[in-house]
Amino acid sequence: MLTNPRSDRVRSVAALSRRSARERTGLFIAEGPQAVREAVRWRPDAVRDLYVTPEAAAAHPEVLVAAGDGHVNVHESSPQVLVAMSGTQAPQGLLAVCRVLTASLTDVLARGPRLLLVLAQVRDPGNAGTVLRSADAAGADAVILSSESVDAWSPKVVRATAGSIFHLPVVTGLPIADILDHVRGAGVRLLAADGSGTRALPDVDLSVPHAWVMGNEAWGLTSQTRQACDEVVRVPIHGAAESLNLAMAATVCLYASAFARGRPMLAP
Amino acid sequence: MLTNPRSDRVRSVAALSRRSARERTGLFIAEGPQAVREAVRWRPDAVRDLYVTPEAAAAHPEVLVAAGDGHVNVHESSPQVLVAMSGTQAPQGLLAVCRVLTASLTDVLARGPRLLLVLAQVRDPGNAGTVLRSADAAGADAVILSSESVDAWSPKVVRATAGSIFHLPVVTGLPIADILDHVRGAGVRLLAADGSGTRALPDVDLSVPHAWVMGNEAWGLTSQTRQACDEVVRVPIHGAAESLNLAMAATVCLYASAFARGRPMLAP
Repeated sequence: MLTNPRSDRVRSVAALSRRSARERTGLFIAEGPQAVREAVRWRPDAVRDLYVTPEAAAAHPEVLVAAGDGHVNVHESSPQVLVAMSGTQAPQGLLAVCRVLTASLTDVLARGPRLLLVLAQVRDPGNAGTVLRSADAAGADAVILSSESVDAWSPKVVRATAGSIFHLPVVTGLPIADILDHVRGAGVRLLAADGSGTRALPDVDLSVPHAWVMGNEAWGLTSQTRQACDEVVRVPIHGAAESLNLAMAATVCLYASAFARGRPMLAP
Repeated sequence: MLTNPRSDRVRSVAALSRRSARERTGLFIAEGPQAVREAVRWRPDAVRDLYVTPEAAAAHPEVLVAAGDGHVNVHESSPQVLVAMSGTQAPQGLLAVCRVLTASLTDVLARGPRLLLVLAQVRDPGNAGTVLRSADAAGADAVILSSESVDAWSPKVVRATAGSIFHLPVVTGLPIADILDHVRGAGVRLLAADGSGTRALPDVDLSVPHAWVMGNEAWGLTSQTRQACDEVVRVPIHGAAESLNLAMAATVCLYASAFARGRPMLAP
């Protein structure tokens, strides 16, 4: 059992809460029962080490079973070790060190995606993680974060995805202009979600393969990005609200796409 | 100009970050340009005092104009006074003390509502506020928070609504069973949103007046509440995600209602 919260191993895991250490090592942390369970179930190949307290092992036997099935290295550890490794005060006794899962845009597009989410310069980790969870729930084929976005593998993003980061391909690191070029080149229609849109949901043809392109939480999409899209679509605001926040708007758009699957478009 | 951050006035405003003081006085705080602007524009009758720094007054002239039109008491104050009054470190130079706006359920129902949101024992202020904002944007006629929910007038809820708390009637303080009785009695169909639902969005008739009933973020709706509703509806989960969080699910349901307005229901 690992009991020394000041060991080199613990320090090197704790360092992964910093982006520089994640980029240098290609590793990131998933914490808590939900994220760790999804990691060992869906991507055991990406889990380098699983740290678990005796209490958490007893409370979450399904995680240990999945870890065994996936040939994951399991290390029994004291609660003090878990706290020292974790960015949070309460990792709930389970922490996995995983290899960064960045997918290739070429691979994603080669599979003929029908629904994509593109995040252009989204900076808030809670928003990015929540939106990734919504994309998973709405059946999106992948999420693409442009360069200058929040790091998808930061502990806050991973936590906010509630495990969804292990469910679908996540592409990172490309400039937004390149992303749009490649996605359109693959025959996927680009729909910019923006309050300035002339066409409102749900009066948009969502029966063809398409990508929702969402902008930064404060300033939205640049005019360059909007112009590079095939259509600018707004989520209608019916009451006196000025807008929806990014996560809500993305969820509405993604679910409009999910609901449109296999249904004819209604005439506007 | 108010400059003493330790005055009785400042202390009594600062006390409003506590629920007990809000309940005793019937007052609450709105902070920051967005919330304060919506307060003076939409409910100047409810604004007892507006505190503003000279810088904020210069940066947001529209707020002062609306305050003048609404005959609001404006007090120029030092930044130190604003910080001392506020629950946050950065009230951005604008703070309004408002009378609690609780609406009467009888009045709401007398107006023939077509879309309501009922929150049963929702505890997280960020969730409650975000959902209130979504309800506003989706054109809901009112939001009803059951007793044992978070206090709608807490600074965190008010902030998360981004001003929407001033746009639509908010009913609070009634037990959930009473709320459901009265809403159904007014001819409004009760739709429980719950992962256990046998019918999935969007295959639900949203053309009739209806209320979405959403449960606590951790344990959902009690079986008693589900059974008191006319239908239990689930938001379909297409990917591998376990669920959506409360704010996402509520937003999807509310927008499904918004999109259904004036449209015939599609056959499932």
